[in-house]
Amino acid sequence: MKILIPGRIIVKKFVGLSAFPLTPLFQDQVDESALIGLVKRLRCAGVDSIAVLGSTGSYMYLNRSERARVAQLAVEHAANVPVIVGVGAMRTSQVLEHIDDAVAAGAKGLLLAPVGYQKLGDQEVLDLFRAATEHSDLPVIVYDNPGTTHFTFSNDLYARIAQIPGIASIKIPGVPEDPIKAKEHVDAIRRILPPHVSIGVSGDSSGAAGLIAGCDAWYTAVGGTIPQPMLEITRAAQSGDALRAVEISQSLEPLWSLFSKFGGSLRISAAIAEYFELVEANCLPLPVQGLNSEQREELVKVLGQLGLDEKLGHQANTGK
Amino acid sequence: MKILIPGRIIVKKFVGLSAFPLTPLFQDQVDESALIGLVKRLRCAGVDSIAVLGSTGSYMYLNRSERARVAQLAVEHAANVPVIVGVGAMRTSQVLEHIDDAVAAGAKGLLLAPVGYQKLGDQEVLDLFRAATEHSDLPVIVYDNPGTTHFTFSNDLYARIAQIPGIASIKIPGVPEDPIKAKEHVDAIRRILPPHVSIGVSGDSSGAAGLIAGCDAWYTAVGGTIPQPMLEITRAAQSGDALRAVEISQSLEPLWSLFSKFGGSLRISAAIAEYFELVEANCLPLPVQGLNSEQREELVKVLGQLGLDEKLGHQANTGK
Repeated sequence: MKILIPGRIIVKKFVGLSAFPLTPLFQDQVDESALIGLVKRLRCAGVDSIAVLGSTGSYMYLNRSERARVAQLAVEHAANVPVIVGVGAMRTSQVLEHIDDAVAAGAKGLLLAPVGYQKLGDQEVLDLFRAATEHSDLPVIVYDNPGTTHFTFSNDLYARIAQIPGIASIKIPGVPEDPIKAKEHVDAIRRILPPHVSIGVSGDSSGAAGLIAGCDAWYTAVGGTIPQPMLEITRAAQSGDALRAVEISQSLEPLWSLFSKFGGSLRISAAIAEYFELVEANCLPLPVQGLNSEQREELVKVLGQLGLDEKLGHQANTGK
Repeated sequence: MKILIPGRIIVKKFVGLSAFPLTPLFQDQVDESALIGLVKRLRCAGVDSIAVLGSTGSYMYLNRSERARVAQLAVEHAANVPVIVGVGAMRTSQVLEHIDDAVAAGAKGLLLAPVGYQKLGDQEVLDLFRAATEHSDLPVIVYDNPGTTHFTFSNDLYARIAQIPGIASIKIPGVPEDPIKAKEHVDAIRRILPPHVSIGVSGDSSGAAGLIAGCDAWYTAVGGTIPQPMLEITRAAQSGDALRAVEISQSLEPLWSLFSKFGGSLRISAAIAEYFELVEANCLPLPVQGLNSEQREELVKVLGQLGLDEKLGHQANTGK
């Protein structure tokens, strides 16, 4: 996306659909062939970027060498689709090591959440982002995921971090359901960011609403496993057809409702990938367990009801 | 502590004062000589056990080899004082690796918190404790620390976990301030635990209240740096002199009030250790920063006011 302001062109990085694949495990090891299959599937679907080692990619459960390998494989098989690599870790020095590995792999961007065991303060988080941006030339996406990090960003902190050279995007949690409030919410963040910093919405049920409210990107978790409907929503919103974007998103309501019911997108994404045999059974890192059999039945019913069943089955066969 | 019930003697493990030393860093490396100094200091003070790699020992910030080394050094320098090693990690397989290292080091017990990036359910936590207890013969302490893990145990879950062979103790968060409510709280937990499972209170300002309410142990964070007052409280409570225990704890009120004011015990423990030159400056793992200079001044004033200043200065010189 290019923004013309007097005297210069500002190119925003990270716009459109950024899809977050799982890092599937098999017997507690990264399942490399399944990971490659998921990455290829996203490339073939035509997503705008692929973000490995996000929350959906279980970054906090993997050790350094596993993470380096995931980054390497993703870049190798994403071909011309830019790969973003999650580099969050408990300790700043570990974040810098992950950045080294992402650079070596050929990543095009870094995703950094302020992960904490001890509760972090604003200054600590600001200094973390400063250290990360100074460590490489790769653009950094600020990963605001309060549900997992338990850190809450204020708009003021967004603004302070976004001033740091190297910050390219803010990944915000969902937006309010009401379209007017969603627009106000995104506008308020937009006003305090430099023009080159993009805003990306996450929280899959908020994707359409976020894009319509003016977000530049949609960082989608479940879209890492089923990209097609999320791409349709994104392309509709990008072409200005807000009504169509909302329609598609609303048609997925039975799926969105399972997100709150089953506690988030990771277990659902894994169950979908397992159902379509894109990955082996029990692909999540223990102690995290997958959905139970009753939940899986309900999910499969919803997939069938939405017609995703057939579409995905087909994609599953061609993508891998 | 021995409990006589018909036909057998039950020996409770982990009673009295269990002190949690910092794992001090220097230039992002474990400061081994400072760690040894802290461990020796606790041994000389006469604590009942030393728990390394608890939250105060920054376990979640250290990698496997660092953690193995800390366990090894602690056992080596604790002499006859039993050493408990924190083995919590994001992934079950990592927990098992840390258990292997703790066993190899000669630990006498394991401390395990259900750490989560993804929110865990009760069954997942139960299975984690089952895997940990089955992996070695060392007794396991259930580490309930909702402020850092964001996992909330119910009494029902305590009961289910405590049934697992190998579970030796539950480390509960603070107890209610009111002595009657504190007693009811501890009694309610006691009733659902097998008799060999001890209850240990944490939350330093709750130590006296917890012991008086019937807890068997006090798992103390700041007592890992200043053991003396915590030992006096513990010995008073153990000898049945509840009044004396409360008196000492109340005299420390200016210190306790800083815990809530400055956000927990880790940064305060580190600032005390730095002030007495038991460790180098900035001994915490970044991004966690120490107290700012204003907070340090306030802390030093409180230490002086409590007479801990002189006592500790003396201990600092002899302990190392």
